[in-house]
Amino acid sequence: MNIKPLGDRVVIKVLENEETTKSGIVLPGTAKEKPMQGEVLAVGSGELVDGKRVPLELKVGDRVIYSKYAGTEVKVDGEEYLILRQNDVLAIVEK
Amino acid sequence: MNIKPLGDRVVIKVLENEETTKSGIVLPGTAKEKPMQGEVLAVGSGELVDGKRVPLELKVGDRVIYSKYAGTEVKVDGEEYLILRQNDVLAIVEK
Amino acid sequence: MNIKPLGDRVVIKVLENEETTKSGIVLPGTAKEKPMQGEVLAVGSGELVDGKRVPLELKVGDRVIYSKYAGTEVKVDGEEYLILRQNDVLAIVEK
Amino acid sequence: MNIKPLGDRVVIKVLENEETTKSGIVLPGTAKEKPMQGEVLAVGSGELVDGKRVPLELKVGDRVIYSKYAGTEVKVDGEEYLILRQNDVLAIVEK
Amino acid sequence: MNIKPLGDRVVIKVLENEETTKSGIVLPGTAKEKPMQGEVLAVGSGELVDGKRVPLELKVGDRVIYSKYAGTEVKVDGEEYLILRQNDVLAIVEK
Amino acid sequence: MNIKPLGDRVVIKVLENEETTKSGIVLPGTAKEKPMQGEVLAVGSGELVDGKRVPLELKVGDRVIYSKYAGTEVKVDGEEYLILRQNDVLAIVEK
Amino acid sequence: MNIKPLGDRVVIKVLENEETTKSGIVLPGTAKEKPMQGEVLAVGSGELVDGKRVPLELKVGDRVIYSKYAGTEVKVDGEEYLILRQNDVLAIVEK
Repeated sequence: MNIKPLGDRVVIKVLENEETTKSGIVLPGTAKEKPMQGEVLAVGSGELVDGKRVPLELKVGDRVIYSKYAGTEVKVDGEEYLILRQNDVLAIVEK
Repeated sequence: MNIKPLGDRVVIKVLENEETTKSGIVLPGTAKEKPMQGEVLAVGSGELVDGKRVPLELKVGDRVIYSKYAGTEVKVDGEEYLILRQNDVLAIVEK
Repeated sequence: MNIKPLGDRVVIKVLENEETTKSGIVLPGTAKEKPMQGEVLAVGSGELVDGKRVPLELKVGDRVIYSKYAGTEVKVDGEEYLILRQNDVLAIVEK
Repeated sequence: MNIKPLGDRVVIKVLENEETTKSGIVLPGTAKEKPMQGEVLAVGSGELVDGKRVPLELKVGDRVIYSKYAGTEVKVDGEEYLILRQNDVLAIVEK
Repeated sequence: MNIKPLGDRVVIKVLENEETTKSGIVLPGTAKEKPMQGEVLAVGSGELVDGKRVPLELKVGDRVIYSKYAGTEVKVDGEEYLILRQNDVLAIVEK
Repeated sequence: MNIKPLGDRVVIKVLENEETTKSGIVLPGTAKEKPMQGEVLAVGSGELVDGKRVPLELKVGDRVIYSKYAGTEVKVDGEEYLILRQNDVLAIVEK
Repeated sequence: MNIKPLGDRVVIKVLENEETTKSGIVLPGTAKEKPMQGEVLAVGSGELVDGKRVPLELKVGDRVIYSKYAGTEVKVDGEEYLILRQNDVLAIVEK
């Protein structure tokens, strides 16, 4: 991947997983709720606080939960990514 | 639990308790008001103030009262949690 | 009371007093205006300013006037309290 | 008076004065515009700026002009007062 | 004049001047646009920045252009004044 | 010109130029889009940051592009000017 | 190009590329979504933080992804450009 996010932003690859409703029906992609987990592909240079860069807590490879509808979807070389501010990432899911 | 909240956030397990109305009828889960107490399962690395991390006042195991409708509900491995900013936690209920 | 407020918050017990209208009729609780006085039962650890805790001006036992509709009503062990930020307390009524 | 305002607040006794319209009719209290002058009865401990208290410019006895509709009216022991932030006071009228 | 403005405020005497429309009719006071020039009669003690007073740029006698509708009109001893924050003054008109 | 802007403001003389539509019709002044270029006639003493004046980047004579609808139009001695905050100036057009 | 952006702004030349829908039809310019990539032509002197200039992360020649609808379109000498704050630039696309 060749996207370098600016400042306190990270680039996320959204994780989608097949899901089964309680009645046992597998829902196709469009009927599901918007996914809220992703994997961090790139991190920015940090947040600017009082003229100093504070490095981000997130690092490449982190699996994260993020706020629904947060960020901006971008498409580069046919691939879709989500660019989020670190502040819109709620938590890291440890594997 | 394997969720590590970011920054000034905490992960809460919502506490639900059976309740009886004044006329003596036990209300099932859906008819009750949204619960406002929970137990802290994980705390973030602290709030970023002027480039320094200020550790959170809350710690794992605290039973807390939080603002109604605050935070974001997430579901990880079939379990539901609430991710809140510490600022949306009103008080600790001492046991 | 076993509630420890966070940060710049205080726990208030609302003071209600019987009132008589000008025409001499005693109003029952529901017809009166929302009361605006209370007694401080617990105070938080202070306001976070530039990474330092500034202790609150209020202390346990203070009788206070607070902004109408400010704060959040909570019920713990059958008792009702009001959790307010110190900034929503207007003044201390000296006894 | 036994009200001690918090922080950057002051307690004001609103000054009302009989007024005569241009056609010479004396207006009773309710038909007049809301008065905008008052006398300072008590001042708070000061404004909290970067963790330090900055004392207020106003002092007890000042006659002030304040923003229409600013502040909160309170009634203590049958007397009505106005609690204002110093920032809502526009000017001091020198006597 | 006996009004002492607080903080970053100034007291202005609004300057009104007869105006003639392009068709040559002199407009009486009420049909004109709200005037936007005034003379500074009094200045406050300065703006509070990080706990220090920064003296105002304006001084008594300055003729100023100010934002339309900015400030609060007050009437003291039968005279009308405008109390403005210095930030609502756009420029000084040099004489 | 005798207008001295305050703080982070500049005084601009709006530049208007005849324009021809693609079909070759010369548009009179009123049918054109609002112009967005001007020449700086005067600059303020600078922006107040933490109690210090930071001099403006703009200087007298700069030809600038500014945000549409930004600033306040003023008329002094029959001449029209635009008073803008430096922050509403997007760029300098080098000649 | 002769535009020098102010402060934390950059001048962008929007990159437009022919696009083919899934059904194979080449869309003309007007039917496409607004493009979100551009090339940086000029950068400002930096962001003003606490009275110091922090140089921008972006440099001339960077190919960037920016927020849809961000910035202001300007036309200088018949050429169209987009003036953006660096904060509206999401990421750099490395070539």
